[in-house]
Amino acid sequence: MKTNINTLFVLCFFVFFIKVSPVFAQSASNTSTSEILKSWNNTANKQAIIAYVSDVTNPKSSNFIPVADRIATFDNDGTLWSEQPAYFQFFFAIDRVKKMAKDHPEWKTEQPFKAVLENDMEALKASGMEGLIKLVMTTHAGMTSTDFEKMVKEWSKTAVHPTKKVPFTDMIFQPMLELLTYLRANEFKTYIVSGGGIEFMRAFLTDVYGIPTEQIIGSTVKTKFEIVDGVPVINRLAELDHNDDKGGKPESINKYIGKKPVFAAGNSDGDLAMLQYTDSNTYKSFQLYIHHTDAAREWAYDRTSSIGKFDKGLDEAIAKKWTVVSMKTDWSAIYPR
Amino acid sequence: MKTNINTLFVLCFFVFFIKVSPVFAQSASNTSTSEILKSWNNTANKQAIIAYVSDVTNPKSSNFIPVADRIATFDNDGTLWSEQPAYFQFFFAIDRVKKMAKDHPEWKTEQPFKAVLENDMEALKASGMEGLIKLVMTTHAGMTSTDFEKMVKEWSKTAVHPTKKVPFTDMIFQPMLELLTYLRANEFKTYIVSGGGIEFMRAFLTDVYGIPTEQIIGSTVKTKFEIVDGVPVINRLAELDHNDDKGGKPESINKYIGKKPVFAAGNSDGDLAMLQYTDSNTYKSFQLYIHHTDAAREWAYDRTSSIGKFDKGLDEAIAKKWTVVSMKTDWSAIYPR
Repeated sequence: MKTNINTLFVLCFFVFFIKVSPVFAQSASNTSTSEILKSWNNTANKQAIIAYVSDVTNPKSSNFIPVADRIATFDNDGTLWSEQPAYFQFFFAIDRVKKMAKDHPEWKTEQPFKAVLENDMEALKASGMEGLIKLVMTTHAGMTSTDFEKMVKEWSKTAVHPTKKVPFTDMIFQPMLELLTYLRANEFKTYIVSGGGIEFMRAFLTDVYGIPTEQIIGSTVKTKFEIVDGVPVINRLAELDHNDDKGGKPESINKYIGKKPVFAAGNSDGDLAMLQYTDSNTYKSFQLYIHHTDAAREWAYDRTSSIGKFDKGLDEAIAKKWTVVSMKTDWSAIYPR
Repeated sequence: MKTNINTLFVLCFFVFFIKVSPVFAQSASNTSTSEILKSWNNTANKQAIIAYVSDVTNPKSSNFIPVADRIATFDNDGTLWSEQPAYFQFFFAIDRVKKMAKDHPEWKTEQPFKAVLENDMEALKASGMEGLIKLVMTTHAGMTSTDFEKMVKEWSKTAVHPTKKVPFTDMIFQPMLELLTYLRANEFKTYIVSGGGIEFMRAFLTDVYGIPTEQIIGSTVKTKFEIVDGVPVINRLAELDHNDDKGGKPESINKYIGKKPVFAAGNSDGDLAMLQYTDSNTYKSFQLYIHHTDAAREWAYDRTSSIGKFDKGLDEAIAKKWTVVSMKTDWSAIYPR
């Protein structure tokens, strides 16, 4: 078992019980696609997106990009859906431990499981990195890919956000859904490139975002093909294969796609390398940086937030004149309904 | 550096100087797509392919497969192009050593490079696994992905087959090109899943097969994102990341695609796991096994061939009544011209 565990869970560990405002007033939004980027206010940022797409898809433009090279990559947590008070995948791990507990009476006295079962975050913290790895690997490995997919699907149908009390899939960003649709209408191939687990996301986010499994990239555990009782299975092993964060994002883009994106969207230091990589494209490229500025409708957090590092990403986005979206002023709606 | 090196090169190592017949009479073939599978003789195998595709794409059939799940995976070496007297990628490694030699005077006395420079296969064999790993990593790692791509592209433009004396890209199988086209016309998504290097193949095979880089899967070295003099680069490291052979094929299919294929084609024991995996699909699936039976037009080799293991694959293909193609009797043409 490697110690280089996905920072996703490390971060979750520290922010799990942060109190957040239960207020979440939502603007009404019409999800019709007859108008472009309907939930975006008519600001300079919306105009910049439309100007870019119009330019690079115009065969007469010197900036024209052939369809095969129109690769658009999106971070997931904090970019396509909310990520507070912790990455949503963490709640799956917690719920999974609670569900598995009946077959593990020893967890009543064994950390970090005891802490999870007793909602004792102090004890969970005290179990340290070793405890965290045990928690992640117990809930995400040691089963076949098929069984893991079933577990996540099942979980996603009933799980609700701890404070908003709505399904996690209701907490996707309506303006970003419209952006995905708009890009696809202009023959961009849209990808998720997230620190989240690849098989976790694929189990239930394809329908939510309209992105097929083969365009969802994320962190991976090692796997092993085996034939068990005549049936071929893919077993998920308790060892990290790839941490799809920071430099891991361009690495996986190079590996899975083999092309440099022309459009990338992110919201944290973990996305900076992907944005820099996209910015180095010889084609005209576009970098979108989501700034969480809306405490009333979503959450407001900045370069000093405890959920992770945002200072380098935001500073570089501003310095390089990337398109920095303020959720409060650029978006007329946050969630689909 | 890991010792679990790609079997591709291990095999090449033993078969590099096998003498093969220089005879390669080729049938004329019309590459027009107006007729289905034109270079396939009208045998039971051709009919089986057409019957399968017609059935699973018919919305009224109980075997109908939705477009999103029409995943077709093809081995490359020996399935889409020839693989004798050694996997073609091996010739790139050899040519690369010879090209690099002027900057490495020490290679005149250092194995395995001395052996390569002197075409001394006995000495190359004597350098063993350690020498082979050194050869592969020297020629395939230690540069950026961009530079590696340029090297392979450049090589592919001038390299010719040692006995056939034609570009390697002229040694693709015309009937398989037609099969790829036919499947795509029926909205199958066609993938290469090969033991060959992923970035080696992507550098020049997209145009040859009409398969975009993101649908070419293969063996990988570890990579590292870095910013060098302000420029983001992906560095190729001298360590194997994934050996995309045998069980490694379904593992990478699960990782890159996230769906079980419904159609798979291979020609060796290295493809057996992929074929078994595809055969376990709950959708009606199709397994194609290419049997090299044509010594006059291509090569004839069987379960006892020295290029690798073919006995388990062929035996299981026959036992399970998969579609075993005899190149001699099923194909009216082998190469495009």
